[in-house]
Amino acid sequence: MTVGLILALGALALIVALFYSRRVNAISIDSGASSPEEIEKLTEISSAIAEGAMAFLKREYRILSLFMGLFAIIIVFTVNDERAGIPLGLWSAICFLIGAGTSVVSGYIGMKIATKGNVRTAAAARISLEKSFRIAFESGAVMGFGLTGLAVMGLILVYLGLITLHPTLDQHIIMEILSGFALGGSSVALFGRVGGGIYTKAADVGADLVGKVEAGIPEDDPRNPAVIADNVGDNVGDIAGMGADLFGSVAESTCAAMVIGAASFAMLEGEAKTSALLFPLFVSGVGIVASLISLFFINPKSEEKVESSLKNALIISTIIMLIALYPFSMSMLPAEFMLGNRMHTNMGVFITLAAGLIAGLAIGLITEYYTSHRYSPVRQVADASQTGAATNIIYGLSLGYNSSVLPMFIMAITVVIGFSFAGMYGIAMAAIGMLGTIAVGLTIDAYGPVSDNAGGIAEMANMGQDIRKRTDALDAAGNTTAAIGKGFAIGSAALTSLALTAAFLTRAELPTINMLDPIVMAGLFVGASLPYAFSAMTMRSVGKAAFSMIEEVRRQFRTIPGLLEGTAKPDYSTCVDISTKASLREMIAPGLLVILTPLLTGWLFGVHMVAGLLIGALITGVMMAISMANSGGAWDNAKKYIETGQLGGKGSDTHKAAVVGDTVGDPFKDTSGPSLNILIKLMAIISLVFVPFFVKNGGILLDMFGLGQH
Amino acid sequence: MTVGLILALGALALIVALFYSRRVNAISIDSGASSPEEIEKLTEISSAIAEGAMAFLKREYRILSLFMGLFAIIIVFTVNDERAGIPLGLWSAICFLIGAGTSVVSGYIGMKIATKGNVRTAAAARISLEKSFRIAFESGAVMGFGLTGLAVMGLILVYLGLITLHPTLDQHIIMEILSGFALGGSSVALFGRVGGGIYTKAADVGADLVGKVEAGIPEDDPRNPAVIADNVGDNVGDIAGMGADLFGSVAESTCAAMVIGAASFAMLEGEAKTSALLFPLFVSGVGIVASLISLFFINPKSEEKVESSLKNALIISTIIMLIALYPFSMSMLPAEFMLGNRMHTNMGVFITLAAGLIAGLAIGLITEYYTSHRYSPVRQVADASQTGAATNIIYGLSLGYNSSVLPMFIMAITVVIGFSFAGMYGIAMAAIGMLGTIAVGLTIDAYGPVSDNAGGIAEMANMGQDIRKRTDALDAAGNTTAAIGKGFAIGSAALTSLALTAAFLTRAELPTINMLDPIVMAGLFVGASLPYAFSAMTMRSVGKAAFSMIEEVRRQFRTIPGLLEGTAKPDYSTCVDISTKASLREMIAPGLLVILTPLLTGWLFGVHMVAGLLIGALITGVMMAISMANSGGAWDNAKKYIETGQLGGKGSDTHKAAVVGDTVGDPFKDTSGPSLNILIKLMAIISLVFVPFFVKNGGILLDMFGLGQH
Repeated sequence: MTVGLILALGALALIVALFYSRRVNAISIDSGASSPEEIEKLTEISSAIAEGAMAFLKREYRILSLFMGLFAIIIVFTVNDERAGIPLGLWSAICFLIGAGTSVVSGYIGMKIATKGNVRTAAAARISLEKSFRIAFESGAVMGFGLTGLAVMGLILVYLGLITLHPTLDQHIIMEILSGFALGGSSVALFGRVGGGIYTKAADVGADLVGKVEAGIPEDDPRNPAVIADNVGDNVGDIAGMGADLFGSVAESTCAAMVIGAASFAMLEGEAKTSALLFPLFVSGVGIVASLISLFFINPKSEEKVESSLKNALIISTIIMLIALYPFSMSMLPAEFMLGNRMHTNMGVFITLAAGLIAGLAIGLITEYYTSHRYSPVRQVADASQTGAATNIIYGLSLGYNSSVLPMFIMAITVVIGFSFAGMYGIAMAAIGMLGTIAVGLTIDAYGPVSDNAGGIAEMANMGQDIRKRTDALDAAGNTTAAIGKGFAIGSAALTSLALTAAFLTRAELPTINMLDPIVMAGLFVGASLPYAFSAMTMRSVGKAAFSMIEEVRRQFRTIPGLLEGTAKPDYSTCVDISTKASLREMIAPGLLVILTPLLTGWLFGVHMVAGLLIGALITGVMMAISMANSGGAWDNAKKYIETGQLGGKGSDTHKAAVVGDTVGDPFKDTSGPSLNILIKLMAIISLVFVPFFVKNGGILLDMFGLGQH
Repeated sequence: MTVGLILALGALALIVALFYSRRVNAISIDSGASSPEEIEKLTEISSAIAEGAMAFLKREYRILSLFMGLFAIIIVFTVNDERAGIPLGLWSAICFLIGAGTSVVSGYIGMKIATKGNVRTAAAARISLEKSFRIAFESGAVMGFGLTGLAVMGLILVYLGLITLHPTLDQHIIMEILSGFALGGSSVALFGRVGGGIYTKAADVGADLVGKVEAGIPEDDPRNPAVIADNVGDNVGDIAGMGADLFGSVAESTCAAMVIGAASFAMLEGEAKTSALLFPLFVSGVGIVASLISLFFINPKSEEKVESSLKNALIISTIIMLIALYPFSMSMLPAEFMLGNRMHTNMGVFITLAAGLIAGLAIGLITEYYTSHRYSPVRQVADASQTGAATNIIYGLSLGYNSSVLPMFIMAITVVIGFSFAGMYGIAMAAIGMLGTIAVGLTIDAYGPVSDNAGGIAEMANMGQDIRKRTDALDAAGNTTAAIGKGFAIGSAALTSLALTAAFLTRAELPTINMLDPIVMAGLFVGASLPYAFSAMTMRSVGKAAFSMIEEVRRQFRTIPGLLEGTAKPDYSTCVDISTKASLREMIAPGLLVILTPLLTGWLFGVHMVAGLLIGALITGVMMAISMANSGGAWDNAKKYIETGQLGGKGSDTHKAAVVGDTVGDPFKDTSGPSLNILIKLMAIISLVFVPFFVKNGGILLDMFGLGQH
């Protein structure tokens, strides 16, 4: 029954995605009121973007498959536990590859539809705002529902496969193998978020610094050689990167909950056992329905309503989830069950789910408050730009610091509620609750870059001020929802990472971790420093990659005659190539840092230090991620606020100061900040998958120095 | 014997301070080769600075005494433990007031000598670099030795007073009462570091933004109305603030060690007991001698040697300490003793001291590497300024992030060594080891702002390019040593805070803290967010205060005829007044945050959450403090590097971009960064002093909700 329901819900999501995909595809670019010349131009530009995006994906996937193959081999040979009775490493590696493959397919679908939706959104802007909005929004829905459906289907099918092949295996071993799926998804996210993040901002910063600042041409101007790379970047970073990140979160939090739950529900029988075990996955299924219902409430009648309409869908889906989850929690879970050494109830689990759901929404709305120029924080940053770039930076940074405080409090409360009502299982369920509305959340997230691209295309195709105004309105709403989405992504990454840590401790059979143990403390310290090392790397990578881009753009302006006058065409593809190569090269070092640190720590110093490491990295990582994302969002919107004509408007000294902040904010909000999600999650899922290795072979250095009962 | 030795060493430090003080005072301003007009001008300017500094101190001390009185009353009524047999709160409050008073006296002496040394350094620059250097350096020595002597004398006298009045009292209760002394010192540091930090940067940023950027007049130009306030700020922030911070660290780490050691050494008898108990204080005494010896090695023969000469003194004193501490550790401590439930040795204690000493030096040298423009990191920031302010900021921030990684690793290793060789006592001894060379460290630290002021005075008195070149050479060396000093201050603050946390846990009788306990976890999360909240506050405070300063300077330029032409004099005192008022007003909110958070947390949620809170704040606080201090130092020196004529030199676009970074760096390195030292230490010492209150009345909210065995 439960299995059938989950399969049906997963299939529903895929059908929704397919439905919207067909609708978007069915719209022809020339169905609008555009002239044939315009249609030709639109086609040309959008092909260039689509080709650039696909070129990046292809090259990324080539490196990815090499990396995945290597990592799979390592898993096969290190993750072993004789007690399991089967080759644990082999099965984990297979799940790992399936998870990675599923994530890759999700990313591919998202990119494909986004690069079709963008030009159709631009073309439809000739007809009406509503029509244009619907195309962008439906493109987003393909991504949102497609990805959620693939995650749910992937997990349930792999689970079914495992229990069919090994019907006598312990459930907790099955769940542990299943974690390989999540590791696969998360590894793809490393490439997507970090590589994609560097790509998009190298192009953006490079295009802005030469185009806007040096050459004095507007954003998205077709004369700028980096303009196509910039638009490709939106797809690479904000679609494929964001998608892979959240795919990972869904898979990881589900696996974490199921690993922890396996021990508690092992004594149940038959359908009761299955429904309790698979309840975490079922919650994601319910979320698909709740998200689908909320879509019907998205019908903005005017420009001003776009933003609130999208935001309301999130709120509505949260409310539906809250109502729907109550009966399911009560019926699918046993009334009372043991977890660790305490008794918990199904009512308790419902409360943890609700806490996660509400916390997610609250963090999203707080993020909006700090990054939208309708509220005072961003306006203060704009005001501070009047005394120059330095005060703009000072106020922007302090806004970011400030904005991370309340979300951290909310997280603390959620953790206390989760733990108090359902132990470590509660933490995982809070994460799942927070990710419950992911289908609609991701729809809205993906809507943003599609509109952004549409605006870029409209500008490049010279569609005129009226059209640009429409796409700008769509884009502005996308900016706010992107900020909400980022808050969501970080919050859920934090809870997911905590849930994975809990699952790791459960599997390593460590019921308590003494913070005063020197090895744990050292782990905390080292872990705390990782987000700093990682951010330093990613920020400099953007700087370096942007610098190559700047050189290339300058070279083209210098060597191509008539380029600035608009009589010659720039060489877009070289810029696309620079971004692609630079991003893939620059992600190697931070990638290795994330992957090797937990492995080496566990191997050399044992599981206690790993526990400290994960918590240390989680704490500083979340604080940094939130403050970077929000500083970046605030700088962006402070600039936009000034561009509405406030404080001197575009071209004033105040505006120039705000542009400096916006440029600093670019790697903050789109590279380093979001990449930290991957850092904290990937380290935790690696630790979980490699528990058998750590337990058997870990802590060799401590043993050597006789330092440890560890 | 031990008591006598400590008294003698403390007295030695005070005699050294007195000796140098007399030497500096004996030099007359007109002993140089200056003309009578110049002497008059020098006297006038230096009086204005001295008056401004004293005006600030007076106003600060007025508010301080009110605050101290109130806080003392709270201590009297809340810190009580019937088992002690005496009114614990009353005695703690008395120690608190004595500690505060001693710190105030140290700060006063430092300010007094600095405001005399600055003008004498400037005047002597007419004679020779050597002469000028000696005056600045000897002024620093008055501060370094005076403060260390007062701290040691204060602690030993209060200890003697307590055991004389209560000869039968348990040693651990005596030590707990003595912690009040450290709390007093640390509370003064709150005012000194936070208030002083806001003062100095409000004046600096305000003076720069209008003077250098808008009016185009050079730094320290006498036509700038904020120039006196700026020079007062150097004394207020870098002398009084830094001094109070380190006074607090010495007192706190000593008390932490003695609180932890009290339990272990209670079973010893007579002199053996006294020497073991007071060993931590004795180490500081040995440091006085080691520092004194190292002074004789400071004899720079040329400009280039100033910096290395100062740095060598630090290295020499570290080596002397390493050698000297071995015999004392072996003879003054029992060969074996129980700590917690493990046996430790005196050799182990020596190793922890050595670890702290070496770690301190290492962190200092790493800081130098990241902030001096002789090395590549700062030069990369300078290079990045070529593409504008945004890339300068991106590279500077990432440098700061990067620079915090290695120190954190060193701290982790120190913690492991400390814990492994002497348990919690080892952590405290590592902190004491790190602070062992404080007398010479502080000498070098205080040397910096004195030279900086001398340069400012030379500029204002129009002493000419040659003289300015000499004072600039002194100042440049001071910049590097200031960076080393900041690294030192943060590192020791971190270890001190950890030692205080260890003492707190010892007193609260919590041998283990389970990180997975939801209440501890919530504490970690909330604690982690405090440095962010605090930094946001202090950065904005600088912004706000600088803004009032800008308005005033603009007003004066507008309304005083002939000011910019140099025919009329600006109204310096209004600017001094603005900085004074703003800094004292703006420090209230962050001050309350630091003081109330541990108190409320302990009262409402109990000691487990306090433990999480302290560790959470420590981890993010240290990372932020190091990265802020180093980003700021690097921006400053990247600008200075360009000013040496590199990359276009002064006045170029690259230089303008670097000035933006320097301005952002000002509150980073001189306000928010150093203030975080206070945050982490003060919260920990408050928790330690209020342990009896928490144990008796703590956790009322948890009890209410039935959430806790806590």
